[in-house]
Amino acid sequence: MKIWLYIGLVASVVSIGVALYLFFWVKRQPPGTEKAQEVASWIREGAQTYLKRLYLALTIVAVILGFIIAVVFSFDLNEIASGQAGITPINGIRMAVAFNSGALCSAIAGYMGMAVAVEANVRTATAANESLNKAFRLSFYAGSVMGLAMVGLAVLGMTVIFLLTGDAEVILGFSFGASALALLAKAGGGIYTKTADIAADLVGKIEVGIPEDDPRNPAVVADNVGDNVGDVAGMGADIFDSYVASAVAVMLLGASANSLSVEYVILPLILCTLGIGASLLGIQFVRVGKNGKPGPALNFGTIITTLFFAVMVLALVLLSDINIGVLWATLTGLVTGVIIGFTSDYFTSEDRKPVFETARVSGSGAAINIITGFSYGLMSIVPSVIGIAAATLLSYYLSELTGLPGIYGIGISAVGMLSISGMIVSADAYGPIVDNARGIAEMAGMDHEVIVKTDKLDAAGNTAKAITKGFSISAAALTVLALFAAYAEVVTAAGIEVDMSLRDPIVVAGVFLGAMTPPLFSALTMLSVTHNAFDMIEEIRRQFREKPGILAGTEKPDYATCVGLAAQGALSSLVLPAFLAVGLPLLVGFILGPNALGGFLAGSIFTGVIFALLMANAGGLWDNAKKYIETGKFGGLGSDAHKASVVGDTVGDPFKDTAGPSLNTLITVMSLVSSLFAPIIAAFSLF
Amino acid sequence: MKIWLYIGLVASVVSIGVALYLFFWVKRQPPGTEKAQEVASWIREGAQTYLKRLYLALTIVAVILGFIIAVVFSFDLNEIASGQAGITPINGIRMAVAFNSGALCSAIAGYMGMAVAVEANVRTATAANESLNKAFRLSFYAGSVMGLAMVGLAVLGMTVIFLLTGDAEVILGFSFGASALALLAKAGGGIYTKTADIAADLVGKIEVGIPEDDPRNPAVVADNVGDNVGDVAGMGADIFDSYVASAVAVMLLGASANSLSVEYVILPLILCTLGIGASLLGIQFVRVGKNGKPGPALNFGTIITTLFFAVMVLALVLLSDINIGVLWATLTGLVTGVIIGFTSDYFTSEDRKPVFETARVSGSGAAINIITGFSYGLMSIVPSVIGIAAATLLSYYLSELTGLPGIYGIGISAVGMLSISGMIVSADAYGPIVDNARGIAEMAGMDHEVIVKTDKLDAAGNTAKAITKGFSISAAALTVLALFAAYAEVVTAAGIEVDMSLRDPIVVAGVFLGAMTPPLFSALTMLSVTHNAFDMIEEIRRQFREKPGILAGTEKPDYATCVGLAAQGALSSLVLPAFLAVGLPLLVGFILGPNALGGFLAGSIFTGVIFALLMANAGGLWDNAKKYIETGKFGGLGSDAHKASVVGDTVGDPFKDTAGPSLNTLITVMSLVSSLFAPIIAAFSLF
Repeated sequence: MKIWLYIGLVASVVSIGVALYLFFWVKRQPPGTEKAQEVASWIREGAQTYLKRLYLALTIVAVILGFIIAVVFSFDLNEIASGQAGITPINGIRMAVAFNSGALCSAIAGYMGMAVAVEANVRTATAANESLNKAFRLSFYAGSVMGLAMVGLAVLGMTVIFLLTGDAEVILGFSFGASALALLAKAGGGIYTKTADIAADLVGKIEVGIPEDDPRNPAVVADNVGDNVGDVAGMGADIFDSYVASAVAVMLLGASANSLSVEYVILPLILCTLGIGASLLGIQFVRVGKNGKPGPALNFGTIITTLFFAVMVLALVLLSDINIGVLWATLTGLVTGVIIGFTSDYFTSEDRKPVFETARVSGSGAAINIITGFSYGLMSIVPSVIGIAAATLLSYYLSELTGLPGIYGIGISAVGMLSISGMIVSADAYGPIVDNARGIAEMAGMDHEVIVKTDKLDAAGNTAKAITKGFSISAAALTVLALFAAYAEVVTAAGIEVDMSLRDPIVVAGVFLGAMTPPLFSALTMLSVTHNAFDMIEEIRRQFREKPGILAGTEKPDYATCVGLAAQGALSSLVLPAFLAVGLPLLVGFILGPNALGGFLAGSIFTGVIFALLMANAGGLWDNAKKYIETGKFGGLGSDAHKASVVGDTVGDPFKDTAGPSLNTLITVMSLVSSLFAPIIAAFSLF
Repeated sequence: MKIWLYIGLVASVVSIGVALYLFFWVKRQPPGTEKAQEVASWIREGAQTYLKRLYLALTIVAVILGFIIAVVFSFDLNEIASGQAGITPINGIRMAVAFNSGALCSAIAGYMGMAVAVEANVRTATAANESLNKAFRLSFYAGSVMGLAMVGLAVLGMTVIFLLTGDAEVILGFSFGASALALLAKAGGGIYTKTADIAADLVGKIEVGIPEDDPRNPAVVADNVGDNVGDVAGMGADIFDSYVASAVAVMLLGASANSLSVEYVILPLILCTLGIGASLLGIQFVRVGKNGKPGPALNFGTIITTLFFAVMVLALVLLSDINIGVLWATLTGLVTGVIIGFTSDYFTSEDRKPVFETARVSGSGAAINIITGFSYGLMSIVPSVIGIAAATLLSYYLSELTGLPGIYGIGISAVGMLSISGMIVSADAYGPIVDNARGIAEMAGMDHEVIVKTDKLDAAGNTAKAITKGFSISAAALTVLALFAAYAEVVTAAGIEVDMSLRDPIVVAGVFLGAMTPPLFSALTMLSVTHNAFDMIEEIRRQFREKPGILAGTEKPDYATCVGLAAQGALSSLVLPAFLAVGLPLLVGFILGPNALGGFLAGSIFTGVIFALLMANAGGLWDNAKKYIETGKFGGLGSDAHKASVVGDTVGDPFKDTAGPSLNTLITVMSLVSSLFAPIIAAFSLF
């Protein structure tokens, strides 16, 4: 099966190559009028300012964590236990290198996504002047730069490490690096984007009454930068992290199962390779026809990629001696992902009861809008949780029936869902690009027709986003369940008997502590948003006060200060959440022992999934209820119902764009850090 | 130790006797002016209308469930397994009788609480005309009618059943009856009270601009009735249910532990008896001095009762051969309860950061107020969860160290906390009585001075409420943990090996399904509130439209229709939540088996506790942020900040008074129904 590793290398290089080709293709497209280019350059520079600061901070974190990892993993616990010196620096160094490579690959994928997004936005707006079709193609191909770069870099990194070391545990280090970076990029980007968004809206729309994306607003650039750093770079890092984590979890499970041959260790890499192929094919099918419906085009791309992938797995199982259970597990994952995606869509679609009801009751005030939206958000948890539970049981028992270890099957179903990430991310990254294109069209004073076209493109992005969000949350849930199983295997391998029974009070205490972590993390990030927005509001007011020419349109606002303020605020808000993610599991593990830590991880998964679903769906619902009213329903724009729905939308902003999307990454990081340090925890914990 | 059962009988009869004495003492106090009496009679009649409908509905439910229980428990599973006829009708009948007795005792306690509250409210207002001291004494003694009746009836019921049958499992039936009634009374009352409150506020305060409690508002009576049915009857039923459930859980654990002698089976009844004594003593110490501070007086009562109780347990342990571990477990429970109560107070107190910050940011609009309050609500989970985890571990290991089964110790710590319920409920029931007194003073046009005094009394009630709420949530958490352990024992006794390991996917699936239940339940009850409020708003608007004399003050509004509408709406909203509580655990048990059901219960406990804390604390925080602004801070009454804080307060209303407080009862009912049906589930489940 080693041939597959080389096929993986080739596929990943091809994927990165196509991404680079598309990147330069996008850059070759007409960049538009001078005014548009100027506006785009503000956003590009703002994004670079943020990224420079973020990557500087991340480099420091990576170096420090890398050093700690190098030291800790230089100790050989077995040798120490038998009374020997037990220091093997090479083990520490290779783990640290793997960790830093993971962080670096994630950073490069995010950077490429950002770099193309800030070029594609203005070009999409310019192309929209010509035709919807052209604009759609440009923005979608720009989105696939990140999708393809991401899966390519991930497979490349994992394959190279495995070829060099042959040890799945070193890939755990790679995965931890990717996830640690993803958490900071995702949470930081989420805080940044909503700080700018809320501050820009509150002062711009409400206090001085200028429209969205008005160039007189000093925070307008920061707001548009936020769309890129939160939605493009952050989201890419997020799926990158699940993608790698699911693969490494299955590799560990494959390595620890005595009944499985070595090909099951590299099977996740094979599936990822097939997924790259399916995505490369699927992307060709994303085209809008004459009648121009971008939404169905995106969904068609996702569906056809899924089909290609399923056929490839079928062929793999038939043509090799891989167990048929792998096919069932993969199909379970894919089908569940699609079903959960579409039910999430039910709760956030304009033509369905939840959004309609929330819009309808808005006439009775903001409070009723919020209670209703929040309640539907709570209800939206139900189908996804049932789906996750069903997928867990199905993939487990179908695998057991065919002779595979059931827990390995759960992991495969996660890998199966995530294998087509190349396509999923492409469709998702498209959204913020067209959103930005709309902003530039507005700021550069383009034709109304262009704005109508970008609005149409934007609506398609929102539908795709709802579906991929459901997909990514359920994939993350299955991934962390596989990681959880891998944790138990690592602890067992360290010679500690794992008994995570709910009848053991120390496990129950662990679950309670784990269960409180996602809500606490959400609270910290959301409070950062309101806190930072408060500072930014002061800055915007100051500019309006000290330079009256801004509002008159005769003076250019100081965009850079707002960008810097948002960046500074977001980065300094990350300290406590980062400690929670890395420090708390270690604290629980060393004080209460590996069984309690197992409970802790389980608890964080349960509430992490529930809060992620609640926040994503409630936030999307409020957003769409507002948009629904803005189409003229229930009083339309400017009515009391509309004002109430704006409050709901603003509450939903940090729900869906700050706290919610970071939770996946939080639980992944906690699972990875626990597995990585499990042998040391097992050796030194108090209980 | 049988002597203790007779002492328990005497203590419970004394407690009920004192409650009746105080009831008639309250009725003998001066009922006030004719106008005040008229207003009070509206509320009294409204309350009776609601109770009549509620009890009618409950009787039907109790008869049907009682019949099912009688049939199901007539089958003797052991005999059937060995091929015999296996029908023993007497077993079924005695379980059904126990079930109905539990429901009846809970109903009587709730009814007494309501009956005295609707007499005491007008008398408190009248007494406030004379002196604060007198008004305080009257309302507190009225509150203790329910406190004492409740503990008396609970101990009486459990003791009589144990004397007659000697079987702790029959008491499980009694407990299930009490909890089933509590769930319907609590959730129904919660929906009723917030329907009326929100509708009255939205039309009254916002649309037509009349003050709170204005007699021209057609919903004002329903609103005041709501305070009684939600806060008095509902809260009483809620603690009644935890009180009985904790005792029965420990009795089951005592009966199933081979190492324990029979006295440990009746130990919870002994502790409850001592608690009754301590409460009767403690109530004597609740007095306001010359300088008139009602808040500290209530807290002093709670603290001194705790001390009396601790001394009594110390004496019990020293003078009998009861294990010293019982003392440690009891103290752990008491200390944790007090600490959690005071930390909850931190998040809802006006002079602390969370409320202050939420009030401060309100100037930036309702959305920021809500995000901030919600985030602090999420943070408020942390200290309580750590407290619960610590109490679980401490009571477990301290018991193990002294030779008691650790799990028995966890149960004892819950019983220890709840033993002083007589005092806790008295302090808690005082709150809605003075709240109502304020309403009557306003409606009957009493002096401004009276309103100032009732406001002062009301503030003390809110402090007491925050502390007892923390107390009751943590007590409920420990209770359900003990019930959870009891469930495992019952399943084991049925000959099924219980293995609730988190490594088993069916257990994980169970936990996921259990974890989604409290959010779903919250969503259903909150949506009922907005839905019913919508209907009621229409009715209020109709009355204002069709009878212009109402707003002019020349025509009396039709209060009864609003009362009826709220009652009807609340009761018909209970069908789905009730199915969730009773049907879902059985469904999970029969389909996925006893291990999955164990996971289900654990999952519901984790998120149940978390959502209960979030909703109670966020709701209290928003309420107090609004009140803080109303004292003139950050712009004061009528400012933009105030308007924003009113939105937060309205969102918090169904959080803290509808969904939040029902969650305790929900998880207790689910645990009880699982334990009760465990042998049948073990015999007939698919997995």
